[in-house]
Amino acid sequence: MEKIGLVVKKAAQKARLAAADLETWLRERGLEVIVDEVEVTINSGSCPTAPPSPIPSDVDLVVVLGGDGTLLYAARAVRKIGAPLLGVNLGGLGFLTEIGLKDLYPTMEKVLAGDFRAEARMLLEASVQRSGQTVAQYTVLNDAVINKSALARILDLKVKIDGKDLTAYRADGLIISTPTGSTAYNLSAGGPIVYPAHESILLTPICPFTLSNRPLILPETAKIEIEVDPKASDLLLTADGQAFCNLEPGDTITAQRSSARISLIKNPYKDYFEILKTKLGWG
Amino acid sequence: MEKIGLVVKKAAQKARLAAADLETWLRERGLEVIVDEVEVTINSGSCPTAPPSPIPSDVDLVVVLGGDGTLLYAARAVRKIGAPLLGVNLGGLGFLTEIGLKDLYPTMEKVLAGDFRAEARMLLEASVQRSGQTVAQYTVLNDAVINKSALARILDLKVKIDGKDLTAYRADGLIISTPTGSTAYNLSAGGPIVYPAHESILLTPICPFTLSNRPLILPETAKIEIEVDPKASDLLLTADGQAFCNLEPGDTITAQRSSARISLIKNPYKDYFEILKTKLGWG
Amino acid sequence: MEKIGLVVKKAAQKARLAAADLETWLRERGLEVIVDEVEVTINSGSCPTAPPSPIPSDVDLVVVLGGDGTLLYAARAVRKIGAPLLGVNLGGLGFLTEIGLKDLYPTMEKVLAGDFRAEARMLLEASVQRSGQTVAQYTVLNDAVINKSALARILDLKVKIDGKDLTAYRADGLIISTPTGSTAYNLSAGGPIVYPAHESILLTPICPFTLSNRPLILPETAKIEIEVDPKASDLLLTADGQAFCNLEPGDTITAQRSSARISLIKNPYKDYFEILKTKLGWG
Amino acid sequence: MEKIGLVVKKAAQKARLAAADLETWLRERGLEVIVDEVEVTINSGSCPTAPPSPIPSDVDLVVVLGGDGTLLYAARAVRKIGAPLLGVNLGGLGFLTEIGLKDLYPTMEKVLAGDFRAEARMLLEASVQRSGQTVAQYTVLNDAVINKSALARILDLKVKIDGKDLTAYRADGLIISTPTGSTAYNLSAGGPIVYPAHESILLTPICPFTLSNRPLILPETAKIEIEVDPKASDLLLTADGQAFCNLEPGDTITAQRSSARISLIKNPYKDYFEILKTKLGWG
Repeated sequence: MEKIGLVVKKAAQKARLAAADLETWLRERGLEVIVDEVEVTINSGSCPTAPPSPIPSDVDLVVVLGGDGTLLYAARAVRKIGAPLLGVNLGGLGFLTEIGLKDLYPTMEKVLAGDFRAEARMLLEASVQRSGQTVAQYTVLNDAVINKSALARILDLKVKIDGKDLTAYRADGLIISTPTGSTAYNLSAGGPIVYPAHESILLTPICPFTLSNRPLILPETAKIEIEVDPKASDLLLTADGQAFCNLEPGDTITAQRSSARISLIKNPYKDYFEILKTKLGWG
Repeated sequence: MEKIGLVVKKAAQKARLAAADLETWLRERGLEVIVDEVEVTINSGSCPTAPPSPIPSDVDLVVVLGGDGTLLYAARAVRKIGAPLLGVNLGGLGFLTEIGLKDLYPTMEKVLAGDFRAEARMLLEASVQRSGQTVAQYTVLNDAVINKSALARILDLKVKIDGKDLTAYRADGLIISTPTGSTAYNLSAGGPIVYPAHESILLTPICPFTLSNRPLILPETAKIEIEVDPKASDLLLTADGQAFCNLEPGDTITAQRSSARISLIKNPYKDYFEILKTKLGWG
Repeated sequence: MEKIGLVVKKAAQKARLAAADLETWLRERGLEVIVDEVEVTINSGSCPTAPPSPIPSDVDLVVVLGGDGTLLYAARAVRKIGAPLLGVNLGGLGFLTEIGLKDLYPTMEKVLAGDFRAEARMLLEASVQRSGQTVAQYTVLNDAVINKSALARILDLKVKIDGKDLTAYRADGLIISTPTGSTAYNLSAGGPIVYPAHESILLTPICPFTLSNRPLILPETAKIEIEVDPKASDLLLTADGQAFCNLEPGDTITAQRSSARISLIKNPYKDYFEILKTKLGWG
Repeated sequence: MEKIGLVVKKAAQKARLAAADLETWLRERGLEVIVDEVEVTINSGSCPTAPPSPIPSDVDLVVVLGGDGTLLYAARAVRKIGAPLLGVNLGGLGFLTEIGLKDLYPTMEKVLAGDFRAEARMLLEASVQRSGQTVAQYTVLNDAVINKSALARILDLKVKIDGKDLTAYRADGLIISTPTGSTAYNLSAGGPIVYPAHESILLTPICPFTLSNRPLILPETAKIEIEVDPKASDLLLTADGQAFCNLEPGDTITAQRSSARISLIKNPYKDYFEILKTKLGWG
């Protein structure tokens, strides 16, 4: 490893201090370091491209210092790079930032020595079609969510899977989630936990009117097509909770697995089930 | 009975036609009829008062021709009148508009003859305090809902019951519901059904972050106080889904049983459990 | 106060030791003490009477040393006495045994001085009718549960409320719960939390076949009548998880509020909401 | 096609009559027919083998006349045969018996002409180890369920996935389900719907004590190992609700995908989503 990118949560002093220390530590080892201090805000998103980043495409590793939100941001920013991501949390364990500050240097030693296990995580590609044009396109690690504003009436969302009618959800919204995202918004909306390596697409309605509209787990190859009620108003598509696009009546949203994947370095001291224990109080 | 008010859903031709027929039928019986054609829209609501209505306060009966939405509207408009409400649906059975068009005249005969059973339904009084001032006040038959906009981050809502800390909900929103409202939004959000005559206040978080944050049923005497996170933005209080107030950081929302009640005429041919059967597919 | 009953969980050495200490402490203050060491087991229950206890009916206070199970047992044993119950847990906070060992003596000082707040808790009376005979009768503080054995097919339970058909549940079982019991089995089965002082009866199906069969909250005055499918087999009624009765096809189970109540001494240092926080991880 | 097996629900006259007609129809076309009239009862099951059947292993097709229960039975009986199954219901649409009597002959014409689509469905292999011996072994199409009896106390079930500790469930039971079984018991217990062709293993606790113990979807390759609490009693493993094995304290239950699969002939007139619509009232 020669070149390392650091993505740092700007708003967190703890992250900035840890990044400065890590930068020094890496340079002492003769490594080149490129730092990207990011502000994780929610952006209006006709943006078809990922947010710009000074981190070049030939880095060998990206270390993220922040919470799960920062890692989601970094995943969108660096996904074309292909380098593995190491997520470091600043206190509270994250589902994505599994490594705490106290394990940072022992883990870095191992990672630099090539002694690490990375896990490929599937991404979803969601896009918005309007009058035959693609007006927005996102690649997400957690979820793409169709949501009505607080004032709008209940939504009618006609869903097709692989060209076949599934149903018309009447609901506050619809979550299209990866297994990685299953422990995020999906869980609050009543969805199940999907083991992250088990590629699947989850379809979870938010507060559905029809009580039998349970979450649906689809094959990773499913092509989802959602037609927005022509009478709907005040509707949004949000991508990983960080970018959004205002929808218009008659828009079609499509979602399917991305050909790209994120490579996430696993905490050598912890497995996924231990994270469930800590984060959800299991066992 | 001498004077009858008719609240008619303007947008529904079927309602207007039925109202014209009913008006003739009533006048033939020597009764005075006052018609209010209403548009049920969602209104910005710093409005502390109910929507204005031509129906005078001395009517003996209010017949509502429309769906549950029209009856909710009428309940706010006429709640100071005290006359019983008869809800007539135009096809689909409603939880509140129990009488179908085909039962309208047999039911009217009974009602005019005084041969009917009315049920008192509790109402909730919700108000918004800002810097010591009451900036909005609503009386609702179904629910008062605190909701974030689709873009806002997860809410933090500190709730006190009778002056004691309950918890700080992290959620998409919070529903404060009457038993009447338990089969409305509350049900979609995972809440239970409360028998309408059993006065209670339901507190149901929408997509709570903490999975153990189950719906809570409080005594009808409970005084609820909700403090909005000073960092929150894009927040609304909606009243029966029909009036709303933009909330500001630091606002306090209070909710408690109203001293007023609505008197709802029951379908002589149907009881509450039959409505559950039809509307929810029970048994 | 002159006469104190102690109900002690026999199987817990910690309880027996604490009871011995408390007995000495009470006798030093000139009080008469009657100790009942109990084994909380599940008993076949054609038993129409409460379990026998040496504690006489004229005690002024009953102290329970054990967990919630011991208090449920004591509640059945001493419910005819009318004296207030003080529940003391041995480590883990209980919903019913709110006082920890470290608060025992400060609390006892207050209680003996008459400086305490007790809360009346409603009880349910459940009985089994077979060919016109009452074959079993229970008074429960938490719940009466109709349950099929692991092997039996899905149950059909026809339920009437106040003589009116509610529905025929197809389910693994049915929980009839008090507000006190709402945080017990009801919660695991998807039911809501009912504030304990808000007298109500909860009807919660266990794994219902019909997904819209949500928990139902009934007025405290409701009279529930459940008819067991004539083809059913391997069915039980359990009372507070501690006594049971084998049901036969054609049996009718009735449940309604008992005229008796239990008086539970509240932890002076804690309110109900703090118990939710500790036991359920709220806030 | 030359040889056809018919599995017929003995208890249903309608099934027997339809089978007689079908047998005649098939013989008229020069086909050999072997009929198996079955009684679907729940059997004690130390049985490591499938139930015996007169249907020989070289049939080209098995037609099942009955409900989903009969097809589950047939699937166990004929799974070594490898011939495709055609499930015919007698009125109520089944998740597995998609073809109604009125579509039987048009469908048979197509099937005999080789014009049909079959779907491979994964099976689960569940077995019970006791003191180093395999005492029971089942292959199921829907689910293997560990269940306590109505009287037993709450279960403690230590679960390992691929040799790693997952959690210790405290619950009434645990459902290990295939995607096919996701619309059966799993759905009543709060689990999601998994598209049947998306091979996965579902782990759904029944009435879990810990409210965050949500259903978990595992990769189809997962090896599940469940250790029964040494203090447990009155415990059962049931296979597709039709065979069972009494468990003893200290038993270990293992479950994993079977190397065998069932081939299910699809209704040419209906897809899976239409079945959701009809059976669950979707859209």
